[in-house]
Amino acid sequence: MTIARRGRAQTGRMMAADSKKKKKPTRPKAEAPRGFRDSFAEECLARQAMLRKITETYRLYGFDPLETSAIEFVDALGKFLPDVDRPMGGIFGFQDEDEKWMALRYDLTAPLARVAAQYRQELPSPYRRYAVGPVWRNEKPGPGRYREFYQCDADTVGAPGAAADAEICGMLADALEAAGVQRGDYQIRINNRKVLNGVMEAIGLLNPEDPDGDATMVEQRMTVLRSIDKLDKFGPDGVRLLLGPGRKDESGDFTDGAGLSEEQIELIIGFVEAERDNGAATCARLKELVGASEAGRKGVEELEEIAALLEAGGVAADRAKIDPSVVRGLGYYTGPVFEAELTFEILDEKGRPRRFGSVAGGGRYDDLVKRFTGQAAPATGVSIGVDRLLAALAAKGAQDTDLARGPVVVLSLDKSAMTRPMAMVAELRAAGIRAEMYQGGGGNMGKQLKYADKRRAPAAIIEGSDEREAGVVQIKDLALGAQLAATIESNEEWKAQPAQFSAPRDQLVEAVHELLARAAARDAELK
Amino acid sequence: MTIARRGRAQTGRMMAADSKKKKKPTRPKAEAPRGFRDSFAEECLARQAMLRKITETYRLYGFDPLETSAIEFVDALGKFLPDVDRPMGGIFGFQDEDEKWMALRYDLTAPLARVAAQYRQELPSPYRRYAVGPVWRNEKPGPGRYREFYQCDADTVGAPGAAADAEICGMLADALEAAGVQRGDYQIRINNRKVLNGVMEAIGLLNPEDPDGDATMVEQRMTVLRSIDKLDKFGPDGVRLLLGPGRKDESGDFTDGAGLSEEQIELIIGFVEAERDNGAATCARLKELVGASEAGRKGVEELEEIAALLEAGGVAADRAKIDPSVVRGLGYYTGPVFEAELTFEILDEKGRPRRFGSVAGGGRYDDLVKRFTGQAAPATGVSIGVDRLLAALAAKGAQDTDLARGPVVVLSLDKSAMTRPMAMVAELRAAGIRAEMYQGGGGNMGKQLKYADKRRAPAAIIEGSDEREAGVVQIKDLALGAQLAATIESNEEWKAQPAQFSAPRDQLVEAVHELLARAAARDAELK
Repeated sequence: MTIARRGRAQTGRMMAADSKKKKKPTRPKAEAPRGFRDSFAEECLARQAMLRKITETYRLYGFDPLETSAIEFVDALGKFLPDVDRPMGGIFGFQDEDEKWMALRYDLTAPLARVAAQYRQELPSPYRRYAVGPVWRNEKPGPGRYREFYQCDADTVGAPGAAADAEICGMLADALEAAGVQRGDYQIRINNRKVLNGVMEAIGLLNPEDPDGDATMVEQRMTVLRSIDKLDKFGPDGVRLLLGPGRKDESGDFTDGAGLSEEQIELIIGFVEAERDNGAATCARLKELVGASEAGRKGVEELEEIAALLEAGGVAADRAKIDPSVVRGLGYYTGPVFEAELTFEILDEKGRPRRFGSVAGGGRYDDLVKRFTGQAAPATGVSIGVDRLLAALAAKGAQDTDLARGPVVVLSLDKSAMTRPMAMVAELRAAGIRAEMYQGGGGNMGKQLKYADKRRAPAAIIEGSDEREAGVVQIKDLALGAQLAATIESNEEWKAQPAQFSAPRDQLVEAVHELLARAAARDAELK
Repeated sequence: MTIARRGRAQTGRMMAADSKKKKKPTRPKAEAPRGFRDSFAEECLARQAMLRKITETYRLYGFDPLETSAIEFVDALGKFLPDVDRPMGGIFGFQDEDEKWMALRYDLTAPLARVAAQYRQELPSPYRRYAVGPVWRNEKPGPGRYREFYQCDADTVGAPGAAADAEICGMLADALEAAGVQRGDYQIRINNRKVLNGVMEAIGLLNPEDPDGDATMVEQRMTVLRSIDKLDKFGPDGVRLLLGPGRKDESGDFTDGAGLSEEQIELIIGFVEAERDNGAATCARLKELVGASEAGRKGVEELEEIAALLEAGGVAADRAKIDPSVVRGLGYYTGPVFEAELTFEILDEKGRPRRFGSVAGGGRYDDLVKRFTGQAAPATGVSIGVDRLLAALAAKGAQDTDLARGPVVVLSLDKSAMTRPMAMVAELRAAGIRAEMYQGGGGNMGKQLKYADKRRAPAAIIEGSDEREAGVVQIKDLALGAQLAATIESNEEWKAQPAQFSAPRDQLVEAVHELLARAAARDAELK
């Protein structure tokens, strides 16, 4: 059958025909699978507005959008997620007709690697791209933990120098501000895997002759990383215990330590506490610690260069700074590592104030494309945690309140005269005012006004037969009405308030414009 | 391990560590699976701009965005696609850990049905929503036929009246114009399944007592539909043959006919050719044909109402009109059916002019939510074929040429003075000018300028040591340079042209602003 093969409707429509064939089909349950969720108007609009501002910043920096398919060959995705050992674990996979395994992407980096390899002849080099979209992880869902979520990445492939890293950091700062985070409410912290490698070399946990290839003592290095990641939680003394003999927590549970010597431990603690008043001083301190290691020295030089470039680009230390206590991602990246933290406090689920924490991270990863081509391609980039950033802005009350406001609702009280509200909404829309007529098919005025309230309509327009004869419309200021209902106690007061007024039919648009302007002024006052 | 559990980078990063364990891993091929594709800058930007304009129109009409997950339970999706009989055919499915089958959505309507059922207590009724996003079909890919493509839908659930259908048609007209289709270049055509049912009843192919439940003669009705769908291709006489004895094509192949009588055939042809000068006259003619059928009469009344409402909403017949020759979707929808066709001609792959054709379709489908709840919920909506519409606008040359333009490229010739270009790009960006510094890590001027060309940069900024001492920068107008290269023949002429000039370093931003204004003026002239 060739009729309307590709449309949307045809598919849904077939279902009805089919269901008629069966007798009493069991009804499917109306729910999304666990770990998946639906976003409604306000959330969608807030996310779209935020993503638009972030991607406009990326564009301003010369990054181009790239959209890849949601589905990739499994072998192009690589060996999936950390934590997960079983094949296909952590991803959603399926076999194609030719038996090849495909899967939904679990991040935006693996598809970039595939594209950078596939189109390496055609793409400019360096290739700067940004990407926005959902990724999927077949993991156990939990509170606030979904199996589908948005990422918003920017990466430069083919740029070997620290200037590319510095630019990503500066761009991240601008993007956060564009998204609505005030300067002073965030801090970008920059560290370098190579400096950590220098520390590992200095304490004898990494072979200085072949730091990249050293496959021994991997576990010990991971234990060190895990321990210093607990700095925020347990403080330097707690980390000392984790690096040394082990630590007992309040409940009496004991965590085995890394068994390092006093000297080894102090070098590590010295590294994470190396931050000084400014980038140059911090780098000088780091050089004292790792100067003996070639990797370490190289890492410090990169940090020095990044600090100088950020300054030249007008990004001061209150926005982005060198901070050796950043350890997140140090196990994965090959050079500089960045993290953006929101520094303001929010209340946690128990009402206690806590720092909001990390909303973006990234770093340099020079083996990105190598898996495909065998040739190293230097790359550096950042990923913004869209949902976390949205939650932060919502918690800070920094979201646009206008997003929640519905359209003006024109009541349709007379089923035999539907052309009249139809003409009114057309006039309002032509003037740029969001408007809809009530489409519920009849229903008395109370029901239609209730609908308008549920829609959070700023106003309802009513034209009964009396109004029609008199050539006027009734305009109900629903936002004001709600405000008054919350404050006014007597019926007399209520009646004296101008939450409903009439206007000549031919001045509908002007009257609604004025009402919306008053509402906006009230909103501004309340802020 | 808890470090950086959720970030993007960590996942890709693990791959490197893992690949080190194996000896000589086989390299994956850098390609997307068949039927999937990548969109680069210009296409992404054009699509985003178009979707933004369309969804702004939807918003103006009071529709709210809804984003559902890409993955649904298989039984919530219904019985998949037409044409496909095998279970799981046509979709991408996989089992969850608890063995439940899930699948990627194949349209945006099935998820809407699930949401409308799941949240029916919370959502306003009627519920107006729009949705934009990819859908997936596990079908055999072919030229221009992908297994992932965008849809952009708007639907009203819970609105029983023709006013909702009329509004969808008016909104579709506005959305097409917002997307860049000129008035006169499109035509929305409206028909009604019920009128077709009236015709089927009149010729004895449908039981008037139970038109919705009549499961007999389904094949004959489909044959009739298929035949009249060929009207464009074979004309009325060809359709007469298909409805009657059958038709032999030029190659001698014979298509079996429906075997209808002369009288039956003339009634059908009368139906598809019922269009008259205006909606009222068309409806009057339709009444003559199907007036004896209750369903038919009801259908004509709905069309009359839609025509009157469109007129009241300021949508004239040159934008949307009643046209009984529309048969697409008539087999699926339960009431009014809409189709938007682009009427301008484009050249096909063989250089022959042809009408661009359909870019959007929709209709009323009153059984949308019933599968879940057992209760009918009237629904009507439209889906715009995003990729087809984009292709149409590109063919028409109606796309924004600015989308292809790259950022200003600031060369970085001196690796020991990278802070200087860094400061320049920061100044340009602060002035709202897209700019990037060359990040390729050295490279002589020729290589860097070649990169700027590949980026389609409007200008390149050069500061060598001479310029630096003199306090100036060289600015190359690359767009003008390319234009000149195409027209100038002698070296002397070339040198006389102002495609490169110098400006004081502290007037960089002004100079680039002026260059961009000149480029825009040249572009406008060329149009």
